[in-house]
Amino acid sequence: MPGPVFLEGESVTLRPIEEADVEFLQRCMNDPRVWRYALDVNPTNRVQIREFFEDVLSGDDGVHCLACDGEEPLGVVSLTGSRYGPDETSRSRAAELAYWFAPERHGQGYGSDAAATMVRYAFEDRNLRRVSARLGSFNDASAGLLESLGFEHEGTLRRAAWFRGEYHDVLWYGLLREEWQARE
Amino acid sequence: MPGPVFLEGESVTLRPIEEADVEFLQRCMNDPRVWRYALDVNPTNRVQIREFFEDVLSGDDGVHCLACDGEEPLGVVSLTGSRYGPDETSRSRAAELAYWFAPERHGQGYGSDAAATMVRYAFEDRNLRRVSARLGSFNDASAGLLESLGFEHEGTLRRAAWFRGEYHDVLWYGLLREEWQARE
Amino acid sequence: MPGPVFLEGESVTLRPIEEADVEFLQRCMNDPRVWRYALDVNPTNRVQIREFFEDVLSGDDGVHCLACDGEEPLGVVSLTGSRYGPDETSRSRAAELAYWFAPERHGQGYGSDAAATMVRYAFEDRNLRRVSARLGSFNDASAGLLESLGFEHEGTLRRAAWFRGEYHDVLWYGLLREEWQARE
Amino acid sequence: MPGPVFLEGESVTLRPIEEADVEFLQRCMNDPRVWRYALDVNPTNRVQIREFFEDVLSGDDGVHCLACDGEEPLGVVSLTGSRYGPDETSRSRAAELAYWFAPERHGQGYGSDAAATMVRYAFEDRNLRRVSARLGSFNDASAGLLESLGFEHEGTLRRAAWFRGEYHDVLWYGLLREEWQARE
Amino acid sequence: MPGPVFLEGESVTLRPIEEADVEFLQRCMNDPRVWRYALDVNPTNRVQIREFFEDVLSGDDGVHCLACDGEEPLGVVSLTGSRYGPDETSRSRAAELAYWFAPERHGQGYGSDAAATMVRYAFEDRNLRRVSARLGSFNDASAGLLESLGFEHEGTLRRAAWFRGEYHDVLWYGLLREEWQARE
Amino acid sequence: MPGPVFLEGESVTLRPIEEADVEFLQRCMNDPRVWRYALDVNPTNRVQIREFFEDVLSGDDGVHCLACDGEEPLGVVSLTGSRYGPDETSRSRAAELAYWFAPERHGQGYGSDAAATMVRYAFEDRNLRRVSARLGSFNDASAGLLESLGFEHEGTLRRAAWFRGEYHDVLWYGLLREEWQARE
Repeated sequence: MPGPVFLEGESVTLRPIEEADVEFLQRCMNDPRVWRYALDVNPTNRVQIREFFEDVLSGDDGVHCLACDGEEPLGVVSLTGSRYGPDETSRSRAAELAYWFAPERHGQGYGSDAAATMVRYAFEDRNLRRVSARLGSFNDASAGLLESLGFEHEGTLRRAAWFRGEYHDVLWYGLLREEWQARE
Repeated sequence: MPGPVFLEGESVTLRPIEEADVEFLQRCMNDPRVWRYALDVNPTNRVQIREFFEDVLSGDDGVHCLACDGEEPLGVVSLTGSRYGPDETSRSRAAELAYWFAPERHGQGYGSDAAATMVRYAFEDRNLRRVSARLGSFNDASAGLLESLGFEHEGTLRRAAWFRGEYHDVLWYGLLREEWQARE
Repeated sequence: MPGPVFLEGESVTLRPIEEADVEFLQRCMNDPRVWRYALDVNPTNRVQIREFFEDVLSGDDGVHCLACDGEEPLGVVSLTGSRYGPDETSRSRAAELAYWFAPERHGQGYGSDAAATMVRYAFEDRNLRRVSARLGSFNDASAGLLESLGFEHEGTLRRAAWFRGEYHDVLWYGLLREEWQARE
Repeated sequence: MPGPVFLEGESVTLRPIEEADVEFLQRCMNDPRVWRYALDVNPTNRVQIREFFEDVLSGDDGVHCLACDGEEPLGVVSLTGSRYGPDETSRSRAAELAYWFAPERHGQGYGSDAAATMVRYAFEDRNLRRVSARLGSFNDASAGLLESLGFEHEGTLRRAAWFRGEYHDVLWYGLLREEWQARE
Repeated sequence: MPGPVFLEGESVTLRPIEEADVEFLQRCMNDPRVWRYALDVNPTNRVQIREFFEDVLSGDDGVHCLACDGEEPLGVVSLTGSRYGPDETSRSRAAELAYWFAPERHGQGYGSDAAATMVRYAFEDRNLRRVSARLGSFNDASAGLLESLGFEHEGTLRRAAWFRGEYHDVLWYGLLREEWQARE
Repeated sequence: MPGPVFLEGESVTLRPIEEADVEFLQRCMNDPRVWRYALDVNPTNRVQIREFFEDVLSGDDGVHCLACDGEEPLGVVSLTGSRYGPDETSRSRAAELAYWFAPERHGQGYGSDAAATMVRYAFEDRNLRRVSARLGSFNDASAGLLESLGFEHEGTLRRAAWFRGEYHDVLWYGLLREEWQARE
């Protein structure tokens, strides 16, 4: 059973990720429809997923939530400091948005709702001024999701990712608080 | 089942916080009606709440009690040394009062009773001479509670808190022993 | 169920304190009729009482017994080295007597019996020459108990304790082996 | 010899604090004209000052600089996160300013220059929106310094400090970025 | 060379105790004219005195100062929490005074000056309300010193010390803040 | 004296960074003309720079060289894995280039030479296929340097950096191996 509700979206709730969710996490994170698109590449056994749960998901850095429809876990949405050091992030008031969803739940609008809820939380509750996201150029679904939320395509790192036998570009998207406010 | 009774108020008992209360703590501390007003901002999973229980609630610093109505847990009341160093606190005989209550129990007078019981304990049993409390300027309920107990509004730290998309002031309240005695 | 019988008094047995007694200890040590008179002041949850059981009651220093009436636990009696260093105590052959009893068992003579049993043990089995005890000047029951056992009031530390809103004196009592022997 | 120059004021330079400065720190921090006004109270030997140097001054939290006139060390200026938790500080973009100067250098304008330099750094380089400071109500020199920099007196915590035999108020001062900009 | 001056008496200065003072400490603490009167009894080698320096003199508990005449070390004056637990001490605002001086410096008034300076510091800077001291009944010099400072003889723990082949009483002395103020 | 020569450019040599270079590093990294442009913000004392030397410069991740003109140290050039995880970097055969130079050596062509040498090493010796670099939009010198080496401007993260009181964009530059080869 998922943990208590931390934030509510339209149809999705965001909750703290509990040890009981590790099985769901492991199933999804080993699914090629998830790891390939997340630019990840390694198999993850139960020992490794537990470490990930304890060190990252239960750690001090970043906000990691389980997106749920009622009691059913759907995926994970995260907001993390820029990897360029805490100071830079803190000063520029920026964070990165990331997410993945169970393959059987792709294309049902859950991602948009969960991401929109996290973006609102980033601007309203955490006082951030910029949320960014990166994705492979082959990931049309994710690009569409970000664009539907008002993210702007800010750059194209040429051939910065390897996906299914070929080099692909990495796309940067960004959303500023004033842009987000103007859409509300 | 809550632990033994440590202090009795009018309708509320204050008890040591036990591991069995962790589920109640986690539910409330993830509720936006609690965390937003407590100037907190992070989701807390079971691992993190256990660490909090072991390191803070079972630690040596501060007094942390579960407020109950009979066997029903209502919230948490704490008395902690000033964060400005143990020596200064010890010499000035001052401590800070903090509390939160389950959202479904707001507005039923439990908070006043629990806080009043802790204040009495601070002055009578711990020989303190001053109890203070901080809150966001948007928190009318908490300001009302403190004023009903005789706390005086001592200062306004301008724009020192971020709450739901805007900067707000932080209010300091203080109550001296002689003021408290005069009201008894 | 209490542990095996270590010493027998008139109506009371003194037994080693077991982990199973922790619940009884916690209930009593959180009761204001116990902690206030013991010059203690903090709430104690199950984690903290377990640490106390393991570090103090199961440690190498001092003698700690559960006073029982048959299988019913009544309170705790202790004999500890003076807190002024093991060497000084060891050379002067002195120790301190301390005790508390469950509130519902106050005034039934159990305390005198348990303390007398511990005092006999101190002189007969441990070769001590002096047993002392401290108490707040407000604690008439404890003063009466000590006087009934032949303890002499040796000093009054003025305003050395805080109890229910006021400073009180701390009374020192002492009993020498020859005095104890003369009464037998 | 002091470390490299990190920031330059009118007549003062701010530099990282080096192990070689420990002797200067220890002399000043043991001087009653420094520790009493800083609401500190303990003697500090070389072992303790080294621990302070390693744990606090060389730690990750806060910015601590040695204020110098050329090669001569004058005092210490610090900017620390609010003690009310990193999240709250980070979201409200606020920090606390603290400083002390060698007694023989009091009243020569060094404090204003060093504090002004740190305040500029807080707003311009660290993107803070609020700088606050606390002091005892008996500390006229420090209040004057803060007021000369445009800090506003925001509150008076009554009898929250003990200084030379009496309770005194603690004063909170605050300066917002827009106020600071308007004065530039 | 002794550390910086922390407090000044009439002819004596009180300074933090530094590692360089360990040789002086060891010489005195092994002198029978010191350890016998301090109710101590063990030889102390350089390893042991270093541990004492690091664990006790450089620790967080108590205030320990080197009394000096100019650069010459004379002895040690300490103010420690009651050994009956930090809470009780903190609530009753009491501490114990202890001191020893190099044998060649006995009888020259240094002890009174150093003790008086520490007592003033206890009441004025640490906000204590009571200072106590214990000594063997054979220690006329120390009793005279305390009485000259206004300490009152509060109790006599009969035969609680062993000194040079015989049992002796331990004397408790106490001084309250209002008594000390009345003498100023 | 700098370490042995690892790579030779036109006028510059790249060498392993030695402990003896720590003083040079500390001076430059505390100079506002270096730290502000590097999007860094903290003062760095000798203890902290030694930790940086041991943990980062002497660690397993990344390539860090001291750029020298003969025996004179000029600055630091680094090639690090993308901060987006070693796997992603390793698969995409990409790395990030970073560099800083002593302020008195700016504008003398050393940067271009050192960066070009590191880029050649990245493609020829490490079999990378892409080198990228990030900089603040205010950093014309660095942008010019990258463009002179054939780097292409790939994106503009809007308002992702804070520099001297204002938000600025962060620019991404990238250079592919085939582009670099075509210029040779």
